[in-house]
Amino acid sequence: MSDSRVIRSVAGGWSGVEPARYKDEGEGSGCFLGATRHTLLGATSDGPADGLNFEVRYFELEPGGYSSLEWHEHPHAVMILKGRGTVRLADSTEPVGPFDIVYVAPGEVHRLSADRAETLGFLCIVDRERDRPVAVPEEEGAGKAAREDAIEESAAEALP
Amino acid sequence: MSDSRVIRSVAGGWSGVEPARYKDEGEGSGCFLGATRHTLLGATSDGPADGLNFEVRYFELEPGGYSSLEWHEHPHAVMILKGRGTVRLADSTEPVGPFDIVYVAPGEVHRLSADRAETLGFLCIVDRERDRPVAVPEEEGAGKAAREDAIEESAAEALP
Repeated sequence: MSDSRVIRSVAGGWSGVEPARYKDEGEGSGCFLGATRHTLLGATSDGPADGLNFEVRYFELEPGGYSSLEWHEHPHAVMILKGRGTVRLADSTEPVGPFDIVYVAPGEVHRLSADRAETLGFLCIVDRERDRPVAVPEEEGAGKAAREDAIEESAAEALP
Repeated sequence: MSDSRVIRSVAGGWSGVEPARYKDEGEGSGCFLGATRHTLLGATSDGPADGLNFEVRYFELEPGGYSSLEWHEHPHAVMILKGRGTVRLADSTEPVGPFDIVYVAPGEVHRLSADRAETLGFLCIVDRERDRPVAVPEEEGAGKAAREDAIEESAAEALP
């Protein structure tokens, strides 16, 4: 039996929701950097699904972090909640900021990047039952160079 | 064929998303006051479902507004994005604010109220295929009194 409830927003996340380093999860074969996942509703492995047919997750990417360059058959519904960054959709890269929505169509190669020297936080809603992501090989050096630029920029801005 | 895309957050809503006065929709038999709905992803009637099995909607309640007191078999996943208010879950009423999450279990009577003299905006994610809400009769005077208090408070705070 599932119970209605309020899950409070608190410093660093939500009350009772344990954030997980995403790359430690072993989900998919992709490469994540500086990513934390908060499974808010509909968890299947570490909590009740509550009759939900979808999962609501919040991801946070450290400055310079990114999600795996990947595709899958299930669509993604993303809403940016914190910071600015970019989203890659197929061969196009677009800036995103608070409350922008990203729809990732089935089969589309995509990646979110915190490449604006800010923490990037976003909701990602997916079907509870879904196919596994397929990682796409990184282009030669491109991801790494962008990450190093962002980290340098972040460090410079953090100086008092 | 559905396409990946970014839906930009703009003043008053999202680019290309036409807000609808919710009470004009004729959905369910409930009573909404001062509610606007923005169907962001997964719309079935006025746009493509994009392969999504869920809908992502954003509702905004004017100060003093509220959603229908109702229940249904499908669960609700709610995240507050703007303002403060309260949520009623069965016989309990709790304050809610930005980034709080509300899980409404199947069959639970619920209502969101912008009763803190602020606009209350929230995401509400539901299954694309779902049962219709069943409205619950208002308790004698309770809703109306709360609404009038909130409107008075709002008007007082708006004075320069």
